[in-house]
Amino acid sequence: MSNLVHDLISTRASASLLRPGTQLSRQAIERLIALATRAPSSFNLQNWRFVITDTPAAKEKLRAVAYDQSKVTDAAAVVILIGTIPDAERLQLDLARAVSAGLLPHGLDTDWAAAARAKYSNDPQASRDEAIRSASLAAATLMIAAEAEGLATCPMIGFDAAGVAREFGLASDEIPVMLVAIGKASEGSWPQKPRRAVSEVLSYA
Amino acid sequence: MSNLVHDLISTRASASLLRPGTQLSRQAIERLIALATRAPSSFNLQNWRFVITDTPAAKEKLRAVAYDQSKVTDAAAVVILIGTIPDAERLQLDLARAVSAGLLPHGLDTDWAAAARAKYSNDPQASRDEAIRSASLAAATLMIAAEAEGLATCPMIGFDAAGVAREFGLASDEIPVMLVAIGKASEGSWPQKPRRAVSEVLSYA
Repeated sequence: MSNLVHDLISTRASASLLRPGTQLSRQAIERLIALATRAPSSFNLQNWRFVITDTPAAKEKLRAVAYDQSKVTDAAAVVILIGTIPDAERLQLDLARAVSAGLLPHGLDTDWAAAARAKYSNDPQASRDEAIRSASLAAATLMIAAEAEGLATCPMIGFDAAGVAREFGLASDEIPVMLVAIGKASEGSWPQKPRRAVSEVLSYA
Repeated sequence: MSNLVHDLISTRASASLLRPGTQLSRQAIERLIALATRAPSSFNLQNWRFVITDTPAAKEKLRAVAYDQSKVTDAAAVVILIGTIPDAERLQLDLARAVSAGLLPHGLDTDWAAAARAKYSNDPQASRDEAIRSASLAAATLMIAAEAEGLATCPMIGFDAAGVAREFGLASDEIPVMLVAIGKASEGSWPQKPRRAVSEVLSYA
């Protein structure tokens, strides 16, 4: 198992070109999003949402606020990864259900909700950071899950955030963090871009 | 392959308790970090750095700025995931090497460096977002790579960012984004926390 996962991670390349006309069933999309939601999030906030563009009209609408990039319409589907500002009240309700089900210790729901309230309620930067972090963890998980099905992916930050929020009806506590285009790589898609040596980025404390 | 990766993702649980005394060789750590660096980043910025605490002294030093959480010292190693503020000049040098090697089209180094300069140079929020995003993509990749070796992981945001920056000598353009504790789960570690149904988080545009 180790080697298969490691091979997948080490050989993955973001697809610079996607093959137009590729289809992905909604059942397949939902399976991938279910996997993306298994990503961890702080306090298990799950502060994310996924808007899918998989029709010509939806993809054209997205392309218009994504600098007219052809990947958006050539993809079988593009996932708009949304991070949400942490909501301690909603967290408490979610955790209370897990406590009731015997999955988490008694009292953890109130403890964690209090900790989340203390961390985020008066700190817009910490709140935004958490939205970016959770959605990014989900995005990486989504891409690995898709690659494991033989699909190609390309994460994209080239979009007009205000335009995406407007066109896709995002709430005021929602941040569009990334687009993930999913499809099949075209011939001519670039190879994996080189990485710095581990010795350049790793140190021991 | 698909099913193995999907099984790994769908069954992973953050380890609430790690077994003290677990060892991880530096060779194994470096293999995992090499995999983490295969995560995608905007423009291939690779704006991340990894500081490893794997000795009792280093782990104690980290625990002191991580709310005294026992996971820090019980882990075989804790990775401090650092995101860095994008540096368009460094990006251009890196991309120029890939262009010279024939991996990317001629001129892309100057084009992307200009785009990165335009995006980040006068926008501290976009710069910080990118640091959080890249380090989080690397963190998720790291956790999946470690789980594929039968290791347990726990992402942690419970630390004093200023304390970590001070104790571990972070530069002013570096943000400690997350800790990832790696080791073996103890008996009594919590099961996977419940996730919301896909229907609650997914919609079609």
